[in-house]
Amino acid sequence: MARIEYPEAVGKLVDELRRLPGVGPRSAERIAIWLLQSARAEPLVLAAALEKAKAEVVACPTCGFFATADRCAICSDPSRDSVLCVVEQATDVLPLERSGAFKGRYHCLGGKLSPLDNVTPDDLRIGPLLRRIEHEHVTEVILAPGSDVEGEATANYLAGLLKGKCHVTRIAQGLPAGGGLEHADALTLARALEGRRGL
Amino acid sequence: MARIEYPEAVGKLVDELRRLPGVGPRSAERIAIWLLQSARAEPLVLAAALEKAKAEVVACPTCGFFATADRCAICSDPSRDSVLCVVEQATDVLPLERSGAFKGRYHCLGGKLSPLDNVTPDDLRIGPLLRRIEHEHVTEVILAPGSDVEGEATANYLAGLLKGKCHVTRIAQGLPAGGGLEHADALTLARALEGRRGL
Repeated sequence: MARIEYPEAVGKLVDELRRLPGVGPRSAERIAIWLLQSARAEPLVLAAALEKAKAEVVACPTCGFFATADRCAICSDPSRDSVLCVVEQATDVLPLERSGAFKGRYHCLGGKLSPLDNVTPDDLRIGPLLRRIEHEHVTEVILAPGSDVEGEATANYLAGLLKGKCHVTRIAQGLPAGGGLEHADALTLARALEGRRGL
Repeated sequence: MARIEYPEAVGKLVDELRRLPGVGPRSAERIAIWLLQSARAEPLVLAAALEKAKAEVVACPTCGFFATADRCAICSDPSRDSVLCVVEQATDVLPLERSGAFKGRYHCLGGKLSPLDNVTPDDLRIGPLLRRIEHEHVTEVILAPGSDVEGEATANYLAGLLKGKCHVTRIAQGLPAGGGLEHADALTLARALEGRRGL
């Protein structure tokens, strides 16, 4: 009696779905079966969306955010002010945009310094950042890598590089909105105290 | 200042990914970004796998399992014995196959009776089951819908239909393998006692 498995095409689909972040072997199988069996599934629409996004979406050559044209929607928006916010990843842009608290432009580094993962300054878009600061009218650079060790190291490194070239600030650390003191860890509290402001 | 969102092609991809079972809005966004940004991602391979699986894989007209030809690999295997196992879904077949404890053929009902969800006997592949029992050489029908209320109702309904036509059995209920009594719920214990066998 032959060992029965799903047809090869299903197995290949499961293999591809397993590679997605957060999708394990069992959910890959569940998703594949749903795609092939459910009346509401539209695998061909998903396939077309994948192909279209892959074909159309590129990194903005100026800032690194997602773009479908020469420049992204932010870089080509003339109403943006002359503050530049440096973030780790293109995915950090939209959370800042959605906050509504920033009206400048962005620069995505493409990562953060991490000697353990062999990420050195050469692997980040630091050269293009220096050229932008030289050629664009930038009044302030806000360093907004994350507040973990690598993010701090990246921000410190950039602060050293940019010293004297323009006004450099670091995004604040402190209590998250809506959080009581009892939920904050010691390091967050220490930084919230350090960063206290006069009222 | 225009409200910035991902390019439309990314938004469309996120929308399609959100429809997958077990994928919420945030993981859909994470998967879409990974597909577009990661060096290891191959969105076009995934798209091709989706298209190939959709084009090639059909339900076996005899048993309802996945097939790429006229009959599935199980129905076209001459070494299978004449026991027929009735399951709810095509996805129930492989777990039984992997157990190695069954060497017969299958019949997938395509669901279970559930008046609350408007699933009546007409919605299940019961007519084809009766025709198979009439025309194929079937020595025993093992009813293997799940052990939930709807599965029990489905099994009882089929048992009534098949009475006198062939030997009908129900897959056993009892303690799961490796489970101690302290982890079993009352209903499982009651059924394990009911189903006890002489040694």
